[in-house]
Amino acid sequence: MNIIEGTIASPKGYYADGLHCGIRKEKKDLGWIVSTVPAQAAAVYTLNHVKAAPILVTKEALLANSELQAVIVNSGIANACTGKQGLAAAYETQQLIAAKLGIKSNQVAVASTGVIGKQLSMTEVKQGIVQLSQDNQTPAAFHEAILTTDTGTKEVVVTAEIGGQLVTMAGVAKGSGMIHPNMATMLSFITTDAKIDAALLSELLKETVDNTYNQITVDGDTSTNDMVLVMANGCADNQEIIVNTEDYLLFKKLFHFVAEVLAKKVAQDGEGATKLIEVQVQHGQTKEAARLIAKKIVGSSLVKSAMFGEDPNWGRIICAAGYAGPELEAGDVDIFLGSEQVLKNGEPQEYDAAKVQEVLEKESILIVVDLKQGEATGVAWGCDLTYKYVEINACYHT
Amino acid sequence: MNIIEGTIASPKGYYADGLHCGIRKEKKDLGWIVSTVPAQAAAVYTLNHVKAAPILVTKEALLANSELQAVIVNSGIANACTGKQGLAAAYETQQLIAAKLGIKSNQVAVASTGVIGKQLSMTEVKQGIVQLSQDNQTPAAFHEAILTTDTGTKEVVVTAEIGGQLVTMAGVAKGSGMIHPNMATMLSFITTDAKIDAALLSELLKETVDNTYNQITVDGDTSTNDMVLVMANGCADNQEIIVNTEDYLLFKKLFHFVAEVLAKKVAQDGEGATKLIEVQVQHGQTKEAARLIAKKIVGSSLVKSAMFGEDPNWGRIICAAGYAGPELEAGDVDIFLGSEQVLKNGEPQEYDAAKVQEVLEKESILIVVDLKQGEATGVAWGCDLTYKYVEINACYHT
Repeated sequence: MNIIEGTIASPKGYYADGLHCGIRKEKKDLGWIVSTVPAQAAAVYTLNHVKAAPILVTKEALLANSELQAVIVNSGIANACTGKQGLAAAYETQQLIAAKLGIKSNQVAVASTGVIGKQLSMTEVKQGIVQLSQDNQTPAAFHEAILTTDTGTKEVVVTAEIGGQLVTMAGVAKGSGMIHPNMATMLSFITTDAKIDAALLSELLKETVDNTYNQITVDGDTSTNDMVLVMANGCADNQEIIVNTEDYLLFKKLFHFVAEVLAKKVAQDGEGATKLIEVQVQHGQTKEAARLIAKKIVGSSLVKSAMFGEDPNWGRIICAAGYAGPELEAGDVDIFLGSEQVLKNGEPQEYDAAKVQEVLEKESILIVVDLKQGEATGVAWGCDLTYKYVEINACYHT
Repeated sequence: MNIIEGTIASPKGYYADGLHCGIRKEKKDLGWIVSTVPAQAAAVYTLNHVKAAPILVTKEALLANSELQAVIVNSGIANACTGKQGLAAAYETQQLIAAKLGIKSNQVAVASTGVIGKQLSMTEVKQGIVQLSQDNQTPAAFHEAILTTDTGTKEVVVTAEIGGQLVTMAGVAKGSGMIHPNMATMLSFITTDAKIDAALLSELLKETVDNTYNQITVDGDTSTNDMVLVMANGCADNQEIIVNTEDYLLFKKLFHFVAEVLAKKVAQDGEGATKLIEVQVQHGQTKEAARLIAKKIVGSSLVKSAMFGEDPNWGRIICAAGYAGPELEAGDVDIFLGSEQVLKNGEPQEYDAAKVQEVLEKESILIVVDLKQGEATGVAWGCDLTYKYVEINACYHT
């Protein structure tokens, strides 16, 4: 596997663009990814019972048809809790893209990110759609167009030889760097030119998401607009990827790598964050239990505050492990901050304060919790809780 | 029911004291409540799988024997994650009190609150126990001795005529106003002179706790030391309270009132808090679902930040309702800030901004969410998320 410079349109047979149409004041706010041929596609959506209009429209399209040829995304307005008018706007956007490309509506996915409860102005959207370019001059503009107040774009591109051909996979994500409210939306799009069936792609997506995107947390608030969408257009002309072959395992590795890189970038750029925190829970009873405990630790406001303050407060870590849900034996637990052990078999350890301080001063902090129960590992990523987080989310008036 | 001035020792047949023994630098750190006769008793404990030593010791005592005559509490050290030495310290404390009072060890409950992972020094504890007074000169000192960095004591005393006699019920609690870490412990003690059987008392306690203490959240972190304990010594000499009688309903009302007042005081005095937030979820499908949604809304970092910023950001409220777990129909939901409606049947409403601003500027904010699903109501209490919260929990070095 090689990591290369590139964009969401680096895999063969894709183009992408992004521009400012007027939903936001100045920044780019509309973008698309188009495959020149129908692509096998799969998506996972927010589990929030309040789902934004574009989520409903995309879900319907993919249920009718596990192929996509285009994704249209706007930032600035989430089109969530916007009732009938909002749903009509999402459908109209989908139809306008289908008409422009001469494809079916259900080959177009729609995504939005931004403020909840405000209506999308179709005047701007329509004008923007007219201007979206069908060549591949500025694909990186798409990476920008999906951001809200993220501090930078988030992308990764990898290649590998699969099924006798060079296969490329690209991913892009937006995370949450809110100055405006209700923008804690996670959107991620992955393109590949690999030949793979939608059913297998969907299965792989679910598995990958459980280990990556679903294991990050910034503030515990699940948005109404989250979506991870993958398209595979087969333009690499590889021999089709079949389950449990060597090609499949390599493709899975690429997929997992792309998703993990993007998930970590989203965690690292969480609202107000100064540090990326990685929690590894080792020797858990089941994968689910280990993941859950890792996620609860990394999501604890007390652990997050301690990491901001660079304080080796392991009591908060074991406390969070204890309330995560799965059974654990406090008397068995070991905790390490970086490579320094602070708890052994549930008993406090004398540790080298200077070495621990070194670990905590880094921009990326590793916390290892060993449960000594079984063979499962769970990893989760998050960020510290800072004054800036409170500022971003309080010093705004709707 | 009358609300009166008083202390945890206001019900007949109790005395209490509190003093400084040296666990903390200057503040009171040891206290007890004693009943002159054995009292029927019940307790609920933290659901954290990591339980502090005093929790284990008290649980064992109450399992052996649903009677208590004394509770000994220290603040400053939580005696959690302290291994065998910590457990031995909790047992020794229990035995010292039993010896001093000439009662059985399993008639003594032990509770601690403070730093996780540090050992309790028995030298100070022993010295303090010697000094604890057996008259009732300074019962209010107990209210102080259980605090960590709460900004004030939390107590309530009520009376009513039950079973032909004046019955008194008193409650005291400590919440979380952390400057030192890992002190987010909730301890609450309730005394009454009513005559009631321990089994019925225990049933009532569980029901009451579900509606009150379990419905508050400051930061989502469940401590290793939480405990709510109630003693009923029968000294009021009322006719014994029997289930489903008028007396029972009145006693239940007193109990619920005391618990709710204390729970709200704990929420209001949450770390760094400037506002008490009450969320009422109406017309839920079940009580559990309504409670869960209310608690998720009041626990959302984004809702808490918005309340700190006095921002009418209802999008964050419906978003939290949506990810709470229970099914809901976004198109049915109404939201009110105070008495001002901001969402009706899932559609944004024009509202009087000045009136909404008035609601948000108050020290106590009411959020009402109407699901229009059924007949169940759930209420939860919390506080805003402020710079001070981050300061308290980050600007400390272990």
